[in-house]
Amino acid sequence: MASNLQAAALLIIDMQKGSFTDTTPRFDEQGVVERINKLAEVFRSQHRPVIVIQHDGTAQGAFLPNTEEWELLDSLRVSAEDISLSKTANDSFYRSDLSKILDEHGTREVMITGCATDFCVESTVQSALAKDYNVTVVADSHTTADRPALSAKQVIDHYNWLWREMIPTGGEIRVLAAADIAEFGRQKTL
Amino acid sequence: MASNLQAAALLIIDMQKGSFTDTTPRFDEQGVVERINKLAEVFRSQHRPVIVIQHDGTAQGAFLPNTEEWELLDSLRVSAEDISLSKTANDSFYRSDLSKILDEHGTREVMITGCATDFCVESTVQSALAKDYNVTVVADSHTTADRPALSAKQVIDHYNWLWREMIPTGGEIRVLAAADIAEFGRQKTL
Repeated sequence: MASNLQAAALLIIDMQKGSFTDTTPRFDEQGVVERINKLAEVFRSQHRPVIVIQHDGTAQGAFLPNTEEWELLDSLRVSAEDISLSKTANDSFYRSDLSKILDEHGTREVMITGCATDFCVESTVQSALAKDYNVTVVADSHTTADRPALSAKQVIDHYNWLWREMIPTGGEIRVLAAADIAEFGRQKTL
Repeated sequence: MASNLQAAALLIIDMQKGSFTDTTPRFDEQGVVERINKLAEVFRSQHRPVIVIQHDGTAQGAFLPNTEEWELLDSLRVSAEDISLSKTANDSFYRSDLSKILDEHGTREVMITGCATDFCVESTVQSALAKDYNVTVVADSHTTADRPALSAKQVIDHYNWLWREMIPTGGEIRVLAAADIAEFGRQKTL
């Protein structure tokens, strides 16, 4: 695998209060947040970028900036050194500064976490791969809700399988558990 | 809906022999092929482009051009006026001539059919929307196989639901049954 995790940026997608409500419970919210918090710690300790993405749904009349539903979960630990990014589509790259930020940090590697697995996480994975980034999806650090045809767990399992099976572009794609990545962190090889 | 079906191009993705074998049966193969054949007739009758896409898997050592698995299904009716397109990634736009062909036909509208729902169809839908094309997915004219966590039918139902729920970009996205589109054809409003 040519991917060089030493150069990766961590993407934390749409971990916003409005997506984690009693009417839209997300699979293993607490566990996902804890693992993202740990991963972000590893990235910060190695001076790698942590990019915290928030959806701006002004065009849809929801997730308006600075409203409560737009806010990040209180349980998500963010740091002043993290990079905040606003997006308006499912794809985090779409008309956003994400490519520019990654360029500025000299990286072609993204590690992807967040919500929702089948919407903004999937769209961002697809877009990153089409743009030849090396992509690592953290298998147990993205989440979604039950869907009409499927349970949230079935959705998560399906996409973790699918991403492993995708055809590489100029970039490669892999799916790893957070514990394996945290282990890299301890070995200073992230 | 701003989408103008009068200007659409029909994409038929990866309906190749190697993807429709006894070991990888696809949900409702015959029905899907029949509906694609009918849609293609409507497009041809209205002098709209029919773009027949075939995966070239040389880099993966499979689906090598001019081998039997690379060939189109015998049941898929193609016409000399159709446009053949080769692709190498899940995303039909990736390093292919698809954008150029659509430009040459002056269209920003794609109607998407083919195989597999969760791989090349999904990747192409995502890419088209990120590129601001108006996208229509034909709900009953794409197919896939059973997956580790899901039946083929569950996968198809999930993506049809998901695509309807996606956030529009500069392009819009909708999911329609082939019969509704064929009806448009009879009304000469395609």
